[in-house]
Amino acid sequence: MIKIRSAEILSVGTELLLGDIVNTDSAFISRRLAALGINQYYQGVVGDNPERLESALSLSLSRSDLVILTGGLGPTYDDLTKETAARLMGRSMYLHEESLQRMMARFEKRGLTMTENNKKQAYMPEGAIVFKNDYGTAPGLAMEDEEKGKIIIMLPGPPRECEPLFSEQVEPYLRGFSDRVFFSKTVNIFGMGESRVESILREEMLGASNPTVAPYAKDGEVQLRVTASGKSEAECVEMCDREIEKIKATEVGGFIYGVDAGSLEDALVAELIRQNKKIACAESCTGGYVAKRITNVSGSSAVLDGSIVTYANRVKEKFVGVSHETLEAHGAVSRETAIEMARGVKELFGADIGISTTGVAGPTGGTPEKPVGRVYVGVVCDGYEEVRELNIGNGLQTREYVRYVSASNALDLARRAITK
Amino acid sequence: MIKIRSAEILSVGTELLLGDIVNTDSAFISRRLAALGINQYYQGVVGDNPERLESALSLSLSRSDLVILTGGLGPTYDDLTKETAARLMGRSMYLHEESLQRMMARFEKRGLTMTENNKKQAYMPEGAIVFKNDYGTAPGLAMEDEEKGKIIIMLPGPPRECEPLFSEQVEPYLRGFSDRVFFSKTVNIFGMGESRVESILREEMLGASNPTVAPYAKDGEVQLRVTASGKSEAECVEMCDREIEKIKATEVGGFIYGVDAGSLEDALVAELIRQNKKIACAESCTGGYVAKRITNVSGSSAVLDGSIVTYANRVKEKFVGVSHETLEAHGAVSRETAIEMARGVKELFGADIGISTTGVAGPTGGTPEKPVGRVYVGVVCDGYEEVRELNIGNGLQTREYVRYVSASNALDLARRAITK
Repeated sequence: MIKIRSAEILSVGTELLLGDIVNTDSAFISRRLAALGINQYYQGVVGDNPERLESALSLSLSRSDLVILTGGLGPTYDDLTKETAARLMGRSMYLHEESLQRMMARFEKRGLTMTENNKKQAYMPEGAIVFKNDYGTAPGLAMEDEEKGKIIIMLPGPPRECEPLFSEQVEPYLRGFSDRVFFSKTVNIFGMGESRVESILREEMLGASNPTVAPYAKDGEVQLRVTASGKSEAECVEMCDREIEKIKATEVGGFIYGVDAGSLEDALVAELIRQNKKIACAESCTGGYVAKRITNVSGSSAVLDGSIVTYANRVKEKFVGVSHETLEAHGAVSRETAIEMARGVKELFGADIGISTTGVAGPTGGTPEKPVGRVYVGVVCDGYEEVRELNIGNGLQTREYVRYVSASNALDLARRAITK
Repeated sequence: MIKIRSAEILSVGTELLLGDIVNTDSAFISRRLAALGINQYYQGVVGDNPERLESALSLSLSRSDLVILTGGLGPTYDDLTKETAARLMGRSMYLHEESLQRMMARFEKRGLTMTENNKKQAYMPEGAIVFKNDYGTAPGLAMEDEEKGKIIIMLPGPPRECEPLFSEQVEPYLRGFSDRVFFSKTVNIFGMGESRVESILREEMLGASNPTVAPYAKDGEVQLRVTASGKSEAECVEMCDREIEKIKATEVGGFIYGVDAGSLEDALVAELIRQNKKIACAESCTGGYVAKRITNVSGSSAVLDGSIVTYANRVKEKFVGVSHETLEAHGAVSRETAIEMARGVKELFGADIGISTTGVAGPTGGTPEKPVGRVYVGVVCDGYEEVRELNIGNGLQTREYVRYVSASNALDLARRAITK
């Protein structure tokens, strides 16, 4: 049996080189390969050009046991992935009757006539394993070279075909090559930067080979991916859990908002549902971003009845009862305004928790006292009140980033307040 | 002077090989390189491993004049793009004082202490051209090898750093290597699908070689990038404008909301400012997404005082005056509710234009009569009223997509209403 020690993905298509589409297939397949415990060291993209495709594929085969090609299985003259791979493996092509029948049935069902060039898609290299395609025209396929210990898999490029073909047929096929099980858990961290997390966990991360601990940072958050391999899923889960307990016992522990928790909004909504509580937001600088993120979560209607954007001062006064004196004395961007907004919106919608944001999102509007990135987020619940002052970026972060991180802090503050 | 005949992008980061992030940097840079007239034949991805990075970079340099590396410029031990590239070009590293000062100022401004490992980010290869980073810690850089005719450019991986650095500093730098001027304009289209746009403009697009017309579809919108090359910018601008006039004269014209207009929200806010009018939204299924997008635009405080999320029926009744009878007779997801919400919110905030959204965002909550993706968006202004019924996706689209496209339609409807 061929031993798959490493894989690489080679994506075929000039549209990728022109940046007309983003390569989501690679990310999707990579996640799945990682979960199968198959290492990847390289990926490549090449255009619809037979010489360059052949040279790229030769290179990939020289350094990896499994090469997964996406794209270039279409009906037109410049789709040549299958033909190139077959030539490289020394296979001739034959008409795969079953694929042809399926394609014809598919066209008939949609009331279309199959053109002659579609027939090209039903030709297969000798000895290929065919993955039938229920989501499009071109079947996927695998070719094994036992002697050289190499496998080439080819899948159609459109994600709505590539993804289900991979999950439904390629994954079971690949599992047949391994006797080990892999399992990952993700630790979600907010409020501590990546380099701080790393410096605390450095020895843990460098030392651990099973489970491995890999950090990655995104939009002001850090995730740790803990991956174990073993003989059974149960064994792997236990190994991951033990590792996560160790991480929780460090200083990082105070900043963990969940394990496989999804996002801050997922964690908050889950906790609100658990406690059967409702939340409402009064947003100034985030302008709806907090409510938008809460309502990203399916089922959020159980925890949010309404929410308000109080952009203008007169709206802050009229709807959420910020006092004219507060605005005069401290300004809209202040601790005082933030807390009055949170109190007011809790009242306005009769919610259990009120949260608020007010700040300078930029790029204009900053002053020496209140620079771009200065934001106050407030929370009020059950007699508990808190305001967090933020200074996001150095006045040079994008408006989007300032607003996103402000919203993240509001979500985090709310979750912490109700779990105190 | 080095002649750039072809380029390739080599992305560095184990997180890409694990599929933890999607490689949007590559797509972004590819689009820009295409607009600069620089060909790309290959792209690669490699993990944070010095040997493999070195071998991948050597290969890239052997087949392309310009190699753009993204990622691996961080402060940690496994960030080694700069060191590897410097070694390959035979350059030693030195502390770039200016970068260090900028980093220290950045940390100080945020009230943070710079850790020792951050200092690594201020080291540069001898002779490097430094691209200062106003969006993060790690500066970008370029190294030129006049003798071999090769250029290596390195940029930080996070898109919010990579993209502005490329646009603001790398593009002008690369323009210096060409005696031709390239200039692009983007035609923004909403409400017509990509394949329809393509079939109408097919001859125009296939026939044109200068300017070229390249369509690309994203999140329910279509953009046409018109790129001209010539001896001067003025000449290119004129060529682009002539081409755009031709496009406007076709059926596509009715769906163009601007040229270099940015986004639907940019176009709407600009028009509202021009007309000195204010807008307010009552959002159900979009849950704040419309307000969030309007307030994405810097200066939107001139056109939006307040906005409301009316998720629960009681909130629809109490705050934006949807009648109990309407909700009973037609339900929350209906034309009737949408128009009452738009009327009510215009009144509530004393705005000139009221817009509304109500629908089934999914993935649950659909019924045979009102399936997932059924959304009503409404607009009321100056006695003009309109409701648009949407059926987004075929019940298989994500919640995010349904909500995004609903918000887009609300923005489009508002812009059309005030420009009627």
